[in-house]
Amino acid sequence: MSERIFNIALDGTGGDRIDPMAIARAVRFATLINQKLKVTVFGTADLERALLSEKLPKGSYEFIEANELIPQDEDPRKVLTAYKNSAMRMAVEYVKAGKAHAVVSSGGTGPLVCLSRHILGVVDGLRPALCAKIPAGPDSYSLMLDLGANASSSPHDLCSFAKLGHVAFKVLFKKEHPLVGILNVGTERNKGSALVKEARDLIEEDKSIGECRFVEANMLFTGHCDVIVTDGFTGNVALKAAEGVASSFLKRSGIKGFFAKLGRPDWLVPWQYNGSILLGVNGLVVKGHGSAGQEAVAVALSQTASMIAGDLSNKICQELA
Amino acid sequence: MSERIFNIALDGTGGDRIDPMAIARAVRFATLINQKLKVTVFGTADLERALLSEKLPKGSYEFIEANELIPQDEDPRKVLTAYKNSAMRMAVEYVKAGKAHAVVSSGGTGPLVCLSRHILGVVDGLRPALCAKIPAGPDSYSLMLDLGANASSSPHDLCSFAKLGHVAFKVLFKKEHPLVGILNVGTERNKGSALVKEARDLIEEDKSIGECRFVEANMLFTGHCDVIVTDGFTGNVALKAAEGVASSFLKRSGIKGFFAKLGRPDWLVPWQYNGSILLGVNGLVVKGHGSAGQEAVAVALSQTASMIAGDLSNKICQELA
Repeated sequence: MSERIFNIALDGTGGDRIDPMAIARAVRFATLINQKLKVTVFGTADLERALLSEKLPKGSYEFIEANELIPQDEDPRKVLTAYKNSAMRMAVEYVKAGKAHAVVSSGGTGPLVCLSRHILGVVDGLRPALCAKIPAGPDSYSLMLDLGANASSSPHDLCSFAKLGHVAFKVLFKKEHPLVGILNVGTERNKGSALVKEARDLIEEDKSIGECRFVEANMLFTGHCDVIVTDGFTGNVALKAAEGVASSFLKRSGIKGFFAKLGRPDWLVPWQYNGSILLGVNGLVVKGHGSAGQEAVAVALSQTASMIAGDLSNKICQELA
Repeated sequence: MSERIFNIALDGTGGDRIDPMAIARAVRFATLINQKLKVTVFGTADLERALLSEKLPKGSYEFIEANELIPQDEDPRKVLTAYKNSAMRMAVEYVKAGKAHAVVSSGGTGPLVCLSRHILGVVDGLRPALCAKIPAGPDSYSLMLDLGANASSSPHDLCSFAKLGHVAFKVLFKKEHPLVGILNVGTERNKGSALVKEARDLIEEDKSIGECRFVEANMLFTGHCDVIVTDGFTGNVALKAAEGVASSFLKRSGIKGFFAKLGRPDWLVPWQYNGSILLGVNGLVVKGHGSAGQEAVAVALSQTASMIAGDLSNKICQELA
């Protein structure tokens, strides 16, 4: 049996519809397909029972009891001062203490970003952002950020996102000069809000990035750009609108649903299952999709294990240095 | 032969890919299915030739030569002072002079909004917005606005959009108390940007509207709300993201494309063909989809004729008075 050398701290309390059994099955699945992975699960006693009932291989997981749950929309000041025994906080602290390589949580975005920034610290001078890998054709991906780590953004913030996404794309997809696009209502230089126009000027001044263009939202899944930069509000709305339409094709009953499933582009679905990475903090923090169930947790764990194996977090820091 | 009592002024120069023959065929189609409709077409000599070659019924159209074209992204000051002989300007002035009931244009959004506001005037104290009918299930629609009439919006602007959409929904769909939603990144009251939170407070204070809630972008096509209020940037991005995903299902070749077309929800497609209405100006102004070709122009003309028949513009003004 190979040694389990990658350790993920899993917040076992977050998510909208995730029950203990689903989390236990996700841990089982992820540690089965990656024999180097060990998961440290933080959660309540019923989660511990669920894990025991799954009879996971010895050494594939450990359990640490954490009984507090941070509400999705808790005030940031309370997030930082209270909830010392919450699974989310304990998991992030586990990474800070060097006991795990990454944290995976499907809890509230606000609390997770807040705790990660505070406990792990931010990369010098940059604004952290949630970044997702979105499909851009067969075997092709773009990175899109920010997806909601920030409630509002300045042109400088968008420039941070461009730098983070640019470096992450280089490291993840081994492409020397990824193309950066800013999400806008038109592709012409004089189109759009003051925010995106000023951001484009700043990004173009940055020698490490080089070229930058505007992209429209109907070009999101087409691979026009490797990195798509947007503010957290717009990014969240764009991806959810896309998700809504994909669902209205796929979540149908009867013959229409059957045809829709046969007719869907293989590469398009299910991008929602991929967790998003919080780029710009000193550590690997992955946010799972809150409502996608056990597959989402399993996929987030597997993908995080690959990112640990690829030394993603350190390589990004080296590139930025 | 019935009398042609509805007159639409058509800007025959706008749009990305619309050739004269496509416009001529659209006029033929629209005036054929609505025998009360006459179209006054503004455009260049080659459009006149195309109309002649289509041998349209006598009295179904008239042609007025207009040789200037306003670039999509022309500076608003130049839009207002130059281009006296542009089809767009002449068509809007035709409505102002009482010679037509409505204007339809597939030209640039910026110039069309600018000329309409300036020449027709705005409804007292309100901020005009582009409003589209989006599908919300079988035989069910929502109205969504703003879709790009404004580059940036204040909470008061969003409140204007809510009033306009609320009244338009009442008039169009004969529902006494339409439900208003604001597009946001979450449904809870404390979620989202300062803009949407302040807008919600303002809208809830407005006795004519009553209830208001937050909706997420994956609820756009589900009928959760009758009226969906958003700023022009976000609205544009949300609809284009949805359009992009629908296209990646439908615009496929071979067997997958065949299944996708069989499996699509009948009601979902093709919402892009519906023109959007500029609400909040004194007159009926309809913006056709710039790149959707002859079907889009024909559908915009037909739907505009129905709105003239329903006295939409006047009824909205009466409701607001």
